[in-house]
Amino acid sequence: MSIITLTTDFGLKDHFVGALKGKIISGFNDAVIIDISHDIDLFNVSEASYIIGAAYSSFPKGTVHLIGVDAELTKENRHIAMQWNDHYFICADNGILSMLTQKIVPQKIVEINIHDRLPSGSTEMDVFVTAACHIAKGGSLSVIGKEISEIKEMNELVPVVAADNNSIKGYVAYIDHFGNCVTNISQKLVKEIAKGRDFEITFSTKTIKSVRKGYSDFTVNERFALKDYEGEKLAIFNEAGFIEIAIYRSNPSTVGTAKTLLGLKFRDVINVKFK
Amino acid sequence: MSIITLTTDFGLKDHFVGALKGKIISGFNDAVIIDISHDIDLFNVSEASYIIGAAYSSFPKGTVHLIGVDAELTKENRHIAMQWNDHYFICADNGILSMLTQKIVPQKIVEINIHDRLPSGSTEMDVFVTAACHIAKGGSLSVIGKEISEIKEMNELVPVVAADNNSIKGYVAYIDHFGNCVTNISQKLVKEIAKGRDFEITFSTKTIKSVRKGYSDFTVNERFALKDYEGEKLAIFNEAGFIEIAIYRSNPSTVGTAKTLLGLKFRDVINVKFK
Amino acid sequence: MSIITLTTDFGLKDHFVGALKGKIISGFNDAVIIDISHDIDLFNVSEASYIIGAAYSSFPKGTVHLIGVDAELTKENRHIAMQWNDHYFICADNGILSMLTQKIVPQKIVEINIHDRLPSGSTEMDVFVTAACHIAKGGSLSVIGKEISEIKEMNELVPVVAADNNSIKGYVAYIDHFGNCVTNISQKLVKEIAKGRDFEITFSTKTIKSVRKGYSDFTVNERFALKDYEGEKLAIFNEAGFIEIAIYRSNPSTVGTAKTLLGLKFRDVINVKFK
Repeated sequence: MSIITLTTDFGLKDHFVGALKGKIISGFNDAVIIDISHDIDLFNVSEASYIIGAAYSSFPKGTVHLIGVDAELTKENRHIAMQWNDHYFICADNGILSMLTQKIVPQKIVEINIHDRLPSGSTEMDVFVTAACHIAKGGSLSVIGKEISEIKEMNELVPVVAADNNSIKGYVAYIDHFGNCVTNISQKLVKEIAKGRDFEITFSTKTIKSVRKGYSDFTVNERFALKDYEGEKLAIFNEAGFIEIAIYRSNPSTVGTAKTLLGLKFRDVINVKFK
Repeated sequence: MSIITLTTDFGLKDHFVGALKGKIISGFNDAVIIDISHDIDLFNVSEASYIIGAAYSSFPKGTVHLIGVDAELTKENRHIAMQWNDHYFICADNGILSMLTQKIVPQKIVEINIHDRLPSGSTEMDVFVTAACHIAKGGSLSVIGKEISEIKEMNELVPVVAADNNSIKGYVAYIDHFGNCVTNISQKLVKEIAKGRDFEITFSTKTIKSVRKGYSDFTVNERFALKDYEGEKLAIFNEAGFIEIAIYRSNPSTVGTAKTLLGLKFRDVINVKFK
Repeated sequence: MSIITLTTDFGLKDHFVGALKGKIISGFNDAVIIDISHDIDLFNVSEASYIIGAAYSSFPKGTVHLIGVDAELTKENRHIAMQWNDHYFICADNGILSMLTQKIVPQKIVEINIHDRLPSGSTEMDVFVTAACHIAKGGSLSVIGKEISEIKEMNELVPVVAADNNSIKGYVAYIDHFGNCVTNISQKLVKEIAKGRDFEITFSTKTIKSVRKGYSDFTVNERFALKDYEGEKLAIFNEAGFIEIAIYRSNPSTVGTAKTLLGLKFRDVINVKFK
């Protein structure tokens, strides 16, 4: 089975996504195409980076992830294909893969150089589709590009640890459909700096005293309390491995959301303070 | 062929739906995954109930329907799998299946009890995906849960028949993309109470004198009248089997919709009066 | 492989699209179903026509395109199936295929006449699904309809060439997700009338002096200039073959779009003036 996932800022109204799928299926009959998101904010590389970082691990090894965000080929933004943690990623080199490469070193990166081999009038998506179908069929990266050793980092994604190791400063990196605010502070970083210490989370004038293990910590009895907790603020390490400020049973039209109740916005500062 | 349908309130912007599909395809290569809706209002069990009730019959027998709305496991909301009318439904026991079980008695219901068998950190969706893949592969319900005899009813979905059997009182249960207002009064109930009598539909100060058989009653010549009827209010028994208040060629930006023209809102009272 | 594409105004919240897919998969197990768009403006035949015209060529020959926009069967709007350029189209005869038939003569058109053979209570979509599955399985058009020679033209889609051949008058026919304004003036028409002359594009008080070959004209070095050009207006012949007024790296929330920056609206006049 050969899976190709799609993450773009194309929206769902226009023909762009349908046409992209038509091109893939034309290039590779047996491709299984799965949408991750087509509603990335236009040209928002940071948002796309979070989404792909949060989604990839749900797919089998060998999956090819095509990312059509800010994909225009320029001198600064080359087209690349990366093998990483046995997944494949095809995108422009615009920092979009930082969230992945910060965690694990890539197995191989190539700068795609097949542009001249395509018919004239070919678009970025024709290039990406050709590369994706090639890899999904089991082709090697070397055939579609020349190896490179480095790709761009997106520095804005890096939280800052205080010199005394007593706090971490990050920010709201993504606000989801439920109004939950995902920060750029990873569980891994917190654990590393905590060295066993407790910590609390502060932002604006507010404090959250503890972090849950996840929404669905079935064994925690406290979760069974319910209705009384609706609208309570809480922090969790979410499935993607980041601190998320949430409201229990968050709902924009009833109890409100972290965004509405706590006044949090994209890029707002979030602190982790160790005791 | 093994079909798994998805109905959630996850929205399409985040990675949630893509990740859910990745998990399914990881668990069962040959699954055919079909979206029913991911735009259910957050935690709106009543809306999800209508949507799944309206959609299921278009799918082949044996289809597995995964419903990710208000799916958190709690003492009150157990995870269940139901075999009903040769379809399978996986969801939390939050009343979401009332619209189905009001019509036909379930063949089998189990309370899912595989939670302890999954890796720690597993989420509700991991449980649902495991159950869905098991059933889609032809596995039996007994393997994933213990049989139970009853599930929760959502009483708000039940219309009230007057003591004298001369009227039925229901309400607007769903407003669709075209602005049409679907009530909770079924064709079956109307027929049962009518015993051959004619009836009219009233709401607020308005009356609709007759009910059409459907939008697409090709043999009814009157449907061929056209442009003159644009913007006219009408009532039909819709495909899902419920009375729907509609506007002919309803369009929010031109002729208006039942919602805008007739001022109907979610939960507004609709009466059927027999003559 | 048998591909069926879907283009509708059904929206994604309701069960309509899921049910449509369920019906197709029930009728033809092996169908590969690909969404083109379900967010066509309600009953907007002109918009649907543009979308299907822009999308079809990305799909392999033999693809069946089902168009569920303004699909009600009436005396004026018969249900038709058209073989054209080795693709198949199923829709109501409401002008929706004009954009295609203006370019190339259809290979065969039939008026679908299977309505009486379907169960009572069948809808337009049941008719379209039956026809689509029949064709996707390799069935002939003659079995599902009687041949006709003409279908409706949508005159509003035809741009006007001045008597002296010195200009073409068209209008904004579609505004896409990026806020780019697609006109109804095709590259083919411009070339035909230009006979080698240069031209400029004017609208309201504005003039664009040249037309690019496409967004992704990789070999043009000028494209590598970048950030300085953000927010610049430009015109291209887009992938669908029409003049499109765009803003470089158009973004509603930052640099703005052709729609917001240039004040262009659906149906606004666009002129091509030859020198």
